[in-house]
Amino acid sequence: MDLTLLHPDKRHELSLRVEKVKFQMQIAGMDGLLVGSPTNLYYLGGGVFRGYVYIPVDRDPLFFMIPPSEGIGDMCHTIRKPEMIAGILESQGIGKATKLGLEFDDLSYSEIRRLMRALPAGEYSDATPVLRMARLIKTDYELRLMRQDGMRQAEVYKQIKHCYQEDMTDMEFQIEIERVLRRVGCLGYLRAAGNRMQLNMGSVIAGANADVPSPYDFSMGGAGTDPSLPVGASGEIMKPGTAVMVDMNGGFNGYQTDMTRCWTIGEVPEKAVRAHECSIAILRDLEHFAHTDVAVGEVYRRARRLADDAGLADCFMGHNHKVAFIGHGVGIELNEMPVVMERNDTPLLGNMTIALEPKFVIPGVGALGVENTYIVTDTGLENITVLDESLKQL
Amino acid sequence: MDLTLLHPDKRHELSLRVEKVKFQMQIAGMDGLLVGSPTNLYYLGGGVFRGYVYIPVDRDPLFFMIPPSEGIGDMCHTIRKPEMIAGILESQGIGKATKLGLEFDDLSYSEIRRLMRALPAGEYSDATPVLRMARLIKTDYELRLMRQDGMRQAEVYKQIKHCYQEDMTDMEFQIEIERVLRRVGCLGYLRAAGNRMQLNMGSVIAGANADVPSPYDFSMGGAGTDPSLPVGASGEIMKPGTAVMVDMNGGFNGYQTDMTRCWTIGEVPEKAVRAHECSIAILRDLEHFAHTDVAVGEVYRRARRLADDAGLADCFMGHNHKVAFIGHGVGIELNEMPVVMERNDTPLLGNMTIALEPKFVIPGVGALGVENTYIVTDTGLENITVLDESLKQL
Repeated sequence: MDLTLLHPDKRHELSLRVEKVKFQMQIAGMDGLLVGSPTNLYYLGGGVFRGYVYIPVDRDPLFFMIPPSEGIGDMCHTIRKPEMIAGILESQGIGKATKLGLEFDDLSYSEIRRLMRALPAGEYSDATPVLRMARLIKTDYELRLMRQDGMRQAEVYKQIKHCYQEDMTDMEFQIEIERVLRRVGCLGYLRAAGNRMQLNMGSVIAGANADVPSPYDFSMGGAGTDPSLPVGASGEIMKPGTAVMVDMNGGFNGYQTDMTRCWTIGEVPEKAVRAHECSIAILRDLEHFAHTDVAVGEVYRRARRLADDAGLADCFMGHNHKVAFIGHGVGIELNEMPVVMERNDTPLLGNMTIALEPKFVIPGVGALGVENTYIVTDTGLENITVLDESLKQL
Repeated sequence: MDLTLLHPDKRHELSLRVEKVKFQMQIAGMDGLLVGSPTNLYYLGGGVFRGYVYIPVDRDPLFFMIPPSEGIGDMCHTIRKPEMIAGILESQGIGKATKLGLEFDDLSYSEIRRLMRALPAGEYSDATPVLRMARLIKTDYELRLMRQDGMRQAEVYKQIKHCYQEDMTDMEFQIEIERVLRRVGCLGYLRAAGNRMQLNMGSVIAGANADVPSPYDFSMGGAGTDPSLPVGASGEIMKPGTAVMVDMNGGFNGYQTDMTRCWTIGEVPEKAVRAHECSIAILRDLEHFAHTDVAVGEVYRRARRLADDAGLADCFMGHNHKVAFIGHGVGIELNEMPVVMERNDTPLLGNMTIALEPKFVIPGVGALGVENTYIVTDTGLENITVLDESLKQL
């Protein structure tokens, strides 16, 4: 349980992150914020621990550690339970907050109510958007970690063709990819917000299974192998004449990249080849079109127009079931801000990290398309998941 | 997205589960209950879907499906959002609940507040304990699924020694076990309540790493390989003179069993051998001692007394950091009721399923002990994770 950002040589990074949170607190009119979710504890401490972080808008943050977690330095206080926080704040001269932020989206109703009772305040407000906004623009340190993810994920994807054997099921193929990922250091556990993204280490979708919808919030569906986890690989043998889409876990260090490549088993129909080429063309276009100050909704609209112009509207972002986005922010969580959808007028900002995934589902053939993770710059998008994107046979 | 319990041949099972929930609702004085968490949707529908289940205490349940999820039969209604539920209930002659149950522990504060606005009621009450109590005693159908898990998990554990190679790291060993588990059908994703059980497919703990505490709610700790996921295997080479504990995912069908076995690399000190034998002796004893109507706290106390009598109190259930339980319920979630801890006076009941894991940490050597999943019967515990328990060299 190393809280890496509390080490003396990382205090600058800690300050940067805390300042970003405080800026968002000011916009939201919050004078105090209590963090308790693993994602945001990791963001602020550089390590997951048992406890809380309290940020007064005008003072240094306080780390409250519940044993066996322990902190280092004078910012850290040991508590047994959250009910002990208020007394420590008072003893430090930090009064009751007028407007206290709590993570309404990230903690359960029971936890939030307990924290409200433990920390009296003038009023309570949702801190989830505040923390998401703070995490939206990555620091250089975070970008370094994400570049590392991208390089490692690409390194594994280079080996994917060696994971394939004839007459394999999609699940057998996925299991071999999981093993290579794990051996290169993938942590496996997929950190996402909410309860709508449950699966094991990602998704391999082959053939007709691509057109089976899933209740989860992934861009592509798949039946899964059991009604308790209805998403992704279905356990069917991968047949000649179909496409296989690999969209597996790129988390090696607390951050993650999101990356998709496709292969075919034998030859696939011309429309599938064209769809894949269209996805690559959309990404090439967006890499220049999308830069600082372009509205996120414009990026979505441009991608959809390019798909329409190619005569592929019927299969863009799904066929039986379509999703309404072509990308999303990515960082500590797989589903960060912004969602790249039509009704999102917020501008892209420098050092946002977004995954763009213009994908197509050709019924009976499979899912086609490419996904890369990008850093937004003033002149366009910098791809951090660099690897050949062409559609090759396995 | 197959809702298996809505098929005509499974309606009996659906009725059984609904009746159990209604019985708990009556005890809690609830006349309505709205379910929205994946775990409880799966429990009631036999498949995870996007939507909700509403249970009026005196009528049949209603399934509300959000596309692309779709239901079968007249219990199912299509909605776009939860705000449409109240109108459908009214049109069916189901009035506003006097006391409406919502899953306070399983859904976020935002979700619960949205559901409260969507469904006016006299008052709102926590449905998490109601659903946990209903799930506590398994039906024959559920027991069949759990017996299947136990057999498959034991089958994989038989192959574990073949996953080992000299000079492997604990993580490399875990990755090979993950692969065998997945190939036998393990779903990988570990379903647990709350945000305090994050890891990839389980835990392999070797040598000194056993004594490193973790912030997560697992019986054993481990440093992990990254501060973002500080639990389990640490990536160190497994050295002669140490023990390796394998406690990996036993989920193959929506339910799961929990099972631990240990091996040694070369010879280990006598105390480690004695601790392992003590764990086996505790389980043999509890298998007769623990039966219907024995208080859960008594089971804990008896296990601890046996460890004390063996002179092993200092390393029982941890050394640097001890946990206060020796077992837990298991089913759809890994951490179901009851927690087998001292202050739990509730009685064991027939067809509860519990995992018992009397474990020891010998500093510098590793974690020792055995875990089995049991069905509670009138005469004792029925082990459903049957496999040799002795401490063998890898």
